Amino acid sequence: MLQDIHKQLDEYYSEMVEIRRYLHQYPELSFQETKTAKYIADFYKELGIPYETNVGGNGVIATLKGGKPGKTIALRADFDGLPIQDQKDVPYKSKVDGAMHACGHDGHTASLLILAKTMKAFQEQLPGTIVFLHQHAEEYAPGGAKPIIESGALDHVDAVFGTHLWATTPFGVLQTSKHAFMAGADRFHLTIQGKGGHGGYPHETKDAIVIGSQVVSELQQIVSRRLDPLETAVITIGQFNAGSAFNIIADTAELVGTVRHLNTNVQEQVIQEIEKIIKGVCAGHDVTYDLNYEKGYPPLINNEHEAELVLKASEKVPEIKQAEIVKPVMAGEDFAYYTMEKPGAYFFTGAKIEGQGYPHHHPKFDIEERALPVAAKTLITAYFDFQEQS
Amino acid sequence: MLQDIHKQLDEYYSEMVEIRRYLHQYPELSFQETKTAKYIADFYKELGIPYETNVGGNGVIATLKGGKPGKTIALRADFDGLPIQDQKDVPYKSKVDGAMHACGHDGHTASLLILAKTMKAFQEQLPGTIVFLHQHAEEYAPGGAKPIIESGALDHVDAVFGTHLWATTPFGVLQTSKHAFMAGADRFHLTIQGKGGHGGYPHETKDAIVIGSQVVSELQQIVSRRLDPLETAVITIGQFNAGSAFNIIADTAELVGTVRHLNTNVQEQVIQEIEKIIKGVCAGHDVTYDLNYEKGYPPLINNEHEAELVLKASEKVPEIKQAEIVKPVMAGEDFAYYTMEKPGAYFFTGAKIEGQGYPHHHPKFDIEERALPVAAKTLITAYFDFQEQS
Amino acid sequence: MLQDIHKQLDEYYSEMVEIRRYLHQYPELSFQETKTAKYIADFYKELGIPYETNVGGNGVIATLKGGKPGKTIALRADFDGLPIQDQKDVPYKSKVDGAMHACGHDGHTASLLILAKTMKAFQEQLPGTIVFLHQHAEEYAPGGAKPIIESGALDHVDAVFGTHLWATTPFGVLQTSKHAFMAGADRFHLTIQGKGGHGGYPHETKDAIVIGSQVVSELQQIVSRRLDPLETAVITIGQFNAGSAFNIIADTAELVGTVRHLNTNVQEQVIQEIEKIIKGVCAGHDVTYDLNYEKGYPPLINNEHEAELVLKASEKVPEIKQAEIVKPVMAGEDFAYYTMEKPGAYFFTGAKIEGQGYPHHHPKFDIEERALPVAAKTLITAYFDFQEQS
Amino acid sequence: MLQDIHKQLDEYYSEMVEIRRYLHQYPELSFQETKTAKYIADFYKELGIPYETNVGGNGVIATLKGGKPGKTIALRADFDGLPIQDQKDVPYKSKVDGAMHACGHDGHTASLLILAKTMKAFQEQLPGTIVFLHQHAEEYAPGGAKPIIESGALDHVDAVFGTHLWATTPFGVLQTSKHAFMAGADRFHLTIQGKGGHGGYPHETKDAIVIGSQVVSELQQIVSRRLDPLETAVITIGQFNAGSAFNIIADTAELVGTVRHLNTNVQEQVIQEIEKIIKGVCAGHDVTYDLNYEKGYPPLINNEHEAELVLKASEKVPEIKQAEIVKPVMAGEDFAYYTMEKPGAYFFTGAKIEGQGYPHHHPKFDIEERALPVAAKTLITAYFDFQEQS
Repeated sequence: MLQDIHKQLDEYYSEMVEIRRYLHQYPELSFQETKTAKYIADFYKELGIPYETNVGGNGVIATLKGGKPGKTIALRADFDGLPIQDQKDVPYKSKVDGAMHACGHDGHTASLLILAKTMKAFQEQLPGTIVFLHQHAEEYAPGGAKPIIESGALDHVDAVFGTHLWATTPFGVLQTSKHAFMAGADRFHLTIQGKGGHGGYPHETKDAIVIGSQVVSELQQIVSRRLDPLETAVITIGQFNAGSAFNIIADTAELVGTVRHLNTNVQEQVIQEIEKIIKGVCAGHDVTYDLNYEKGYPPLINNEHEAELVLKASEKVPEIKQAEIVKPVMAGEDFAYYTMEKPGAYFFTGAKIEGQGYPHHHPKFDIEERALPVAAKTLITAYFDFQEQS
Repeated sequence: MLQDIHKQLDEYYSEMVEIRRYLHQYPELSFQETKTAKYIADFYKELGIPYETNVGGNGVIATLKGGKPGKTIALRADFDGLPIQDQKDVPYKSKVDGAMHACGHDGHTASLLILAKTMKAFQEQLPGTIVFLHQHAEEYAPGGAKPIIESGALDHVDAVFGTHLWATTPFGVLQTSKHAFMAGADRFHLTIQGKGGHGGYPHETKDAIVIGSQVVSELQQIVSRRLDPLETAVITIGQFNAGSAFNIIADTAELVGTVRHLNTNVQEQVIQEIEKIIKGVCAGHDVTYDLNYEKGYPPLINNEHEAELVLKASEKVPEIKQAEIVKPVMAGEDFAYYTMEKPGAYFFTGAKIEGQGYPHHHPKFDIEERALPVAAKTLITAYFDFQEQS
Repeated sequence: MLQDIHKQLDEYYSEMVEIRRYLHQYPELSFQETKTAKYIADFYKELGIPYETNVGGNGVIATLKGGKPGKTIALRADFDGLPIQDQKDVPYKSKVDGAMHACGHDGHTASLLILAKTMKAFQEQLPGTIVFLHQHAEEYAPGGAKPIIESGALDHVDAVFGTHLWATTPFGVLQTSKHAFMAGADRFHLTIQGKGGHGGYPHETKDAIVIGSQVVSELQQIVSRRLDPLETAVITIGQFNAGSAFNIIADTAELVGTVRHLNTNVQEQVIQEIEKIIKGVCAGHDVTYDLNYEKGYPPLINNEHEAELVLKASEKVPEIKQAEIVKPVMAGEDFAYYTMEKPGAYFFTGAKIEGQGYPHHHPKFDIEERALPVAAKTLITAYFDFQEQS
Repeated sequence: MLQDIHKQLDEYYSEMVEIRRYLHQYPELSFQETKTAKYIADFYKELGIPYETNVGGNGVIATLKGGKPGKTIALRADFDGLPIQDQKDVPYKSKVDGAMHACGHDGHTASLLILAKTMKAFQEQLPGTIVFLHQHAEEYAPGGAKPIIESGALDHVDAVFGTHLWATTPFGVLQTSKHAFMAGADRFHLTIQGKGGHGGYPHETKDAIVIGSQVVSELQQIVSRRLDPLETAVITIGQFNAGSAFNIIADTAELVGTVRHLNTNVQEQVIQEIEKIIKGVCAGHDVTYDLNYEKGYPPLINNEHEAELVLKASEKVPEIKQAEIVKPVMAGEDFAYYTMEKPGAYFFTGAKIEGQGYPHHHPKFDIEERALPVAAKTLITAYFDFQEQS
């Protein structure tokens, strides 16, 4: 049956591309993706697969109950775009000013919709139940995954799989990890409230630039000295803005940054150490500060068993020439919440356009469309493997 | 005769105020003060005192040759305004949007013009020659003093005096110094060219914020360790701007600052040390930088003898209750060039409005107008004292 | 046969303890352990097992060729002591002033000798060849392993196993890793040559303490910003000594430290970055430096296959209740050279004295002697498992 | 009379040298200088000038009441040696192991004794009263000046003068200041109590070297940013000692330093800022510290009037070819206490040996002995000038 499914997916290739290109022209930003949600819902309506809308926000979940007994497995695709101006020169370029599918979620959606259409035809023979989980708002924390879970969408699910079309990984390559696969990613904003004044009279001021610089320097010690060297964390200050004139001592300094980690214990320690250092520096300068730390997505930890199923599945997908265990990727992904809730695995489906390969979030980002059926095949194969081995 | 002159100045008080308030309503920015220059020139034309215009730019110089032999002494008043929006609520508020006489140069001009009018009446008895030096562009380096000197205006001058109406010094107080009185003030702009990248992959970048912070920290050592502790210097970074997003490592950092000093040897050493430190830090991070250091006005060093004449003169001006030797002021002033060229002294004429006292360059800045004749009296008294003692 | 061997080892327990305690009383420092080497050689002479002495220094290697065909496997025990004063209060306390078996190498040796004595009795039935590798000088780089390998001792060996009695791991627990198990450990010595002088005249000096402090601060950035966050490294400055009087600026600063890593690429990068930072800091202060970086033992990387054999073997040793895969230990071990040369694995045999557990190199260090036969049993079991699976 | 006195001093030159060389051979350390005190007392006994011993410790004060009315003026000479091994090769080299007159106090004493002997002969004609103030313990805070003043020795004194033979100032040159002449000099000792541990496990420690380095870096900001740039202060860390092994993280760091200042307000601010910074850094690292700050001698501030008398006196001493107003010297001197109590001035009498000039406290330090009568002549001339002008 699997071969028949794969064959059917290949036959639907042009429709898959058509859907993807349509969505590509009409991207919607996170939490505002109502038209895309309607498009998805209409597709399931047309197919005659029962679905729910407005799940945890704009989420759409369709459920295909097979004719044979089995487990319930969710396959997830996200569908939001990004606030980036499309700079590609292609017929399916974004028609929305300032918005773009610069991360491939259009492809995820098209792939999953066509997989649904395909599986509808195999419903009778299908063991178990497929949950087609169309998630909104992956790009912008707090994201769509969390409210979707809170709505109970995973309650009867036994496992969850998902994939990201990956524009810098060659076509024909699958990448995953048996443990941590993507990083936890937080954001923090620090305002140091010094005391401004005339550039020639530093002793009458509290120089926010000197204090901010010291904070930056000392934060380095968290990773170098305070964390277990066998753990992983990154603390990046991405923005430092202070001062309005060359000859006036700055009143305040604004520092904005991100923390990346693979482990929430490390995350908690980093948060404590950041605050401790800032507090110490500010005390040493007799100034106040305001630190706003927002936890973002947790690290995405694959389950070893489900990751092995994905690797095994990849062997049955002819286009996949190579499956790699890779080191964790330091970007975040709210698929993380699913594997905290249920067994599951996430993987990258190589979708690099040969000779191109603009990275995700680049204004010229694009994907190799031949990867769309590969993603669908791998997901459904893992589905079957999971049914078998249970 | 001096008493008669003082008396005459008092009688012209309302005209002095009128001129000041007129100029206050029509401020012009540095190097653009053509209407003010014309106003001044017309005043001298009216008086029948010979004058030159366009001296070193917009400068106006009038020369009153006395009927008796004596020395030639320049009395200087500057006349440019500032790019500040006037926020005072007075009838003579600036009528020019975005420009304001926020430093009192309107008062300097009115005071000197009325002094000229007064002295015209005493021309016969006057020993020596008074040069009324109306200077443009004091507020913006490279300033007007330098080109005025280069035009030869001081060639036949024996000494030069000038005063600043000082809005934070009480009325009735005169302040000066026998040595360094105001600081040399330079400007520098540093661009650190790092290598930007993803916030989770610091090892693929050269983090301009970390490097910039280190530069700020190390620059502190110049004053604390590298300069003679008995010398004076201030190195202020007034602006630090880097980065565009919390999760992207900054490509470049822009640091803009000022150096204050009282001695050009110290200035030269500071310049060398700044460059040495930046070069070392950047080498340690394998990045490039661009440092643009602009020397501003040199320190204003009064001549001891002329400063003593001013102090002596102050005793003959009844409104002056107190004359103080003060520590150098860390602001800059291009009167500095005059005392590098000729003997001279600069002093502050207390012009604080009781119960107010907004500092110079403040949007609500104003001056006590009773100080205008005091300034004129002190200048002309010093003129006479200089004639006598020579 | 394995059960018989284990039983025999148990029967020799008191002799094993006796040997261990004898050696414990007569520790010899690295590269000076001639009496211990003679003791070992005499033991083999007595047993009638052929051996070589002075292998790569003081090494002793005995070879027991079994009556049946099979692979050649080396089992390694090190035998040097440490320059530490024994502070234990036991009858077998060190009799050598200033020297002590504070790391358990006495136990390693006793265990391996008794294993040899045991196996001599099983020689006829034994498949393959056991190489009893008694290594000198593990405690002091460059160590004994390297010259022993260079002497050709591993040329005909198919695999190598070794264990460390581990005083902080409970008895009955075995610990190992399938990949990196112990760290590469280097040493560096930095001398900063500033310019000393009177404490009140910093500008006439180049303050080595300020420069050294800056080096310490900036070195933090290597781990925090320059290395891949998914890699592991530690840079520790263990000693900072500078200055002779409170009121004299220090001429030189001495900084001595260690680098730990799990990967020689990381090591090479760290070395480059350390030098780059020091060079930059010293350039920024116009001083010279002398950096002496000594590479120590490389990281000890177990082979996955041999590590799995050890884990499997542990199940057959009744005293071992638990076998753990652990994170790498940040201490160094020159067993590392063996697994760079041949397949092999190293593991810890839990030897904590209940209620005690002084760490290795502590003046009161001691081991649970019941762990000695456990070490021997695990090694010989892994030997047999290796023979079987090949 | 002055010329006669000068002449007499010249005649006593060889005795002056003899006394100086005798004292040079028998130096005594601060607070232990009992034999020297007895030597001085015996000298006055012999002369028949009344004296007191054990003034404020080992001080000796002799009082010569002149035959004519006048003011009472103290002339001070200190007489302690230093804990330095004499490395000169001269017949009068120190005979006391580990002690040396390496600062010239032997010369001060000889000069003042012979001045007393000289003045005894002029007692009848002498206006006023000379107080020969022989002070112990100048080299070691809290010094001898303070207890001598507390004993009431200056109660009836109108002014006080003193000089230091200065080995780096050429013979024939006198140096003084009308204001601050020598610095206040304090000492502080900081112990940072971190938490030591294995060099590969920084996260289990609190690295005292990293913390200490940060303290050193941040202390720089006190001078560069927190003090009025027109004030003077030096903060020097002269010693940084931490750690016992390259691979063990240091438990504690010891930092010892000095503060120099010219103004006790600045001193108080520096003390507060040092503590604030250390407290902040230690809070940021969650460690404790112990800071022991010992105030030393205050800054030596000459009175303008008395300094001018010294300058005037110098014109009457034929050997003095040049009298200079110099910038403050950053070394300390407890003569400071005298001018806090009474009008007075301190000056340097040039005593450089041509072609040599080892600095004070150097093991080869020596002085040009021809400066001894110059010192005496200047002091007695200032005495007479003070009498005249009062």
